[in-house]
Amino acid sequence: MKAIYFDGEKAVFRDDYEKPVPGPKQSLVRILMSAVCSTDKEVLKGYKPDFVGVMGHEFVGVVEESDQESLIGKRVVGELNAGCGHCVYCKSGREKHCVERKVIGLADKDGCFAEYMTIDTHLLHVVPWDLPTELAIFTEPLAAALEIPSQVHLKPENNCAIIGDGRLAFLIAQVVAMTGVNLTVIGHHEEKLEKFRPYANVMLDPDDTYEVVIEASGSKEGIQIAKQIVRHQGTIVLKSTYAGEVSINMSDFVVHEITIKGSRCGPFEPALNLLRKRRVTLPDIELYSLENFEKAFSSKAFKAGFSISE
Amino acid sequence: MKAIYFDGEKAVFRDDYEKPVPGPKQSLVRILMSAVCSTDKEVLKGYKPDFVGVMGHEFVGVVEESDQESLIGKRVVGELNAGCGHCVYCKSGREKHCVERKVIGLADKDGCFAEYMTIDTHLLHVVPWDLPTELAIFTEPLAAALEIPSQVHLKPENNCAIIGDGRLAFLIAQVVAMTGVNLTVIGHHEEKLEKFRPYANVMLDPDDTYEVVIEASGSKEGIQIAKQIVRHQGTIVLKSTYAGEVSINMSDFVVHEITIKGSRCGPFEPALNLLRKRRVTLPDIELYSLENFEKAFSSKAFKAGFSISE
Repeated sequence: MKAIYFDGEKAVFRDDYEKPVPGPKQSLVRILMSAVCSTDKEVLKGYKPDFVGVMGHEFVGVVEESDQESLIGKRVVGELNAGCGHCVYCKSGREKHCVERKVIGLADKDGCFAEYMTIDTHLLHVVPWDLPTELAIFTEPLAAALEIPSQVHLKPENNCAIIGDGRLAFLIAQVVAMTGVNLTVIGHHEEKLEKFRPYANVMLDPDDTYEVVIEASGSKEGIQIAKQIVRHQGTIVLKSTYAGEVSINMSDFVVHEITIKGSRCGPFEPALNLLRKRRVTLPDIELYSLENFEKAFSSKAFKAGFSISE
Repeated sequence: MKAIYFDGEKAVFRDDYEKPVPGPKQSLVRILMSAVCSTDKEVLKGYKPDFVGVMGHEFVGVVEESDQESLIGKRVVGELNAGCGHCVYCKSGREKHCVERKVIGLADKDGCFAEYMTIDTHLLHVVPWDLPTELAIFTEPLAAALEIPSQVHLKPENNCAIIGDGRLAFLIAQVVAMTGVNLTVIGHHEEKLEKFRPYANVMLDPDDTYEVVIEASGSKEGIQIAKQIVRHQGTIVLKSTYAGEVSINMSDFVVHEITIKGSRCGPFEPALNLLRKRRVTLPDIELYSLENFEKAFSSKAFKAGFSISE
């Protein structure tokens, strides 16, 4: 079958990759569409030095084989993290934090930039019939945005700032604005900030302090800005990951009693619900064939990906 | 009157300090007993470069004059932070975070190492008749320990580690142990750890991971140890303040979805309740006269202070 394979150094197109065979409690999924995430580009830069295999973790597919018969023929999306099933994290509802976990397209598990993929069946979520594939493909990033209201009680009477004007910030802004909070988005790019106007006040420099500050800039300086503008006894949500350490005065967090919350992957079902009800505005995904993977990886579109089968 | 005065460089004993006069909505308190806090020693090292005045913020006294007549003659303890009364913090129940606040013996307000002190009346708490002054003097540090269960829901089924074996850690351990959590105290000093045995497992090196880690070591390395032993999706409570910055990988907190909570002063009423019911074990305070302030400041006792009037 066709696949985009990371050989440890670079991505290569292969048309001779062996079609996978599902193991016990797994399903075989025919991939309809996959999307490129910034994490995939990090893999190309060496973010996952131990990973070799098929890339990609955002997909919509059709179940062709499964231990759960009712799923066969259904359109599905799937979660990334497959835990060991028996550690303290797996046994306490924190499978995505299992230290032995396999991660689709990122750690010890072939991903979805291919015609077929296997996946642990319990990680699958059925896509409602009235949700088109082109929207369902946004389930995983929207779930990551929804992890924030899942972790932090955003009270309508609070004010809130998002630092960052990129793709993740755009999804976060829409999710946060639904709570009724007075939302401000702080970014570097006037043209990017324009599209946030239906949801938030937009500004280049902060002019207030905020009960909740969401750091989604993707850069090291974000945490320092968040520290300056968060209210005492307020909350900073950290979404950005980057290589290296930050030098920071932790005593200020003690004296001001700040809460800092790290935030990663989120819940799929509410993401599917919001997409189905068209509560989130999304631009069209820019689609390529697997053969044209380099164009997809270098695209500047809001979302680029692969149209793989019908 | 007698007072220990910080002149901007050093502490001096004075017997000619003017007895203060209470302003509107203030009370005049005759100090019975005051206690030395490590923050007072930090003042001597230059922690509060803008402060000059009478030192000290932990006290038990008797109200001699007050706008609230029912308080006159009552024994009282008092909170440190007097807010401006009209900012976002004062108006949302966060007076101790007012950026314009005066702090007894620390910022723009004479303290309690003296025969008399004035204080905003709303900051006073009456000491129950059956709580001796020698125990009531521990109200403020015990309240600081109680800030932790006030901020973090410590579930009985969780495990919890305290990093540090000093005075604050000892109060925190007793408060945390009451919740029924499986508590471990990690310290550097075998002899200090002994006194924690009624409340906790004690160890020199951690041997597990913990849902809640309370960093009360007072040292910079504490946060790094906390980061290593906290469970994914767990909570680190920061109690230590120290000068300078820490170099730390913030992305780990994102990927592991750690919550970090800064924690400072706490609620006085529950502290008075626990002391009154003798639910906390405390060694005797070592008492000196104000004239002997240098001995009190250099004492190695669990708690040293001043016996000022009867």
